[in-house]
Amino acid sequence: MKDCIFCKIINKEIPSCIVYESKEVIAFLDISPINKGHTLVMPKKHYETFLDLPKSELEVLFGKIQEVTKAVIKATNADGFNLLLNNKRAAGQVVDHVHFHVIPRFENDGLKHWPHGKYNEGEDEKIATKIRSFLK
Amino acid sequence: MKDCIFCKIINKEIPSCIVYESKEVIAFLDISPINKGHTLVMPKKHYETFLDLPKSELEVLFGKIQEVTKAVIKATNADGFNLLLNNKRAAGQVVDHVHFHVIPRFENDGLKHWPHGKYNEGEDEKIATKIRSFLK
Repeated sequence: MKDCIFCKIINKEIPSCIVYESKEVIAFLDISPINKGHTLVMPKKHYETFLDLPKSELEVLFGKIQEVTKAVIKATNADGFNLLLNNKRAAGQVVDHVHFHVIPRFENDGLKHWPHGKYNEGEDEKIATKIRSFLK
Repeated sequence: MKDCIFCKIINKEIPSCIVYESKEVIAFLDISPINKGHTLVMPKKHYETFLDLPKSELEVLFGKIQEVTKAVIKATNADGFNLLLNNKRAAGQVVDHVHFHVIPRFENDGLKHWPHGKYNEGEDEKIATKIRSFLK
């Protein structure tokens, strides 16, 4: 898509450090890594968000995410990793071409996880009932 | 697996707010939500980490993650969401039964993303070359 920075990388109009490429999927280093080796994996075809991906794309994408992640871990000697998808601006999505972040993690790397809250009595079952109503 | 808290939830030995259940996949509310409606999605079969999942499980799981996410968004009127997997203790994995977090997000909910760093000159290409060497 015109004006999509990731489409420009995919079309080699902008340079990047590509670590994997197939007909359908590409993976390259995040230019501003959370930890070094931080890699973005995405379908080459332009879909704006995760919810726009057809099942056929999901299947191909997730097999490749697993393969790329294994390679990132080996190359960085990481102790673990996060797989992160930000969907829409409110969730931190900056480029509107669906992409997963593979973030290698190291013991004591200082990255803090978000604080967890709790439910008032009965509130959890009320929300669960509402979610279930959209899954029928 | 004995002593796995998620296997106990799957076997109904421990109560939880289940929002979706099929033969292979289950989704229930995180008891300590980052935002209300925060849902965990996982295969019923016990696999410790994402890297242990066979491709057949990945395919089923990701289709369901997409469906569950759509329902969570509708039920919570969220402005976006994060999909997060923590793999191993260094990355924040607390229960050793692979699970994805679906976290509904709201404009100005105050959750801060991790800071991004940068590469020294040539360091990115060196790391990319190393990652690529594990993908051949």
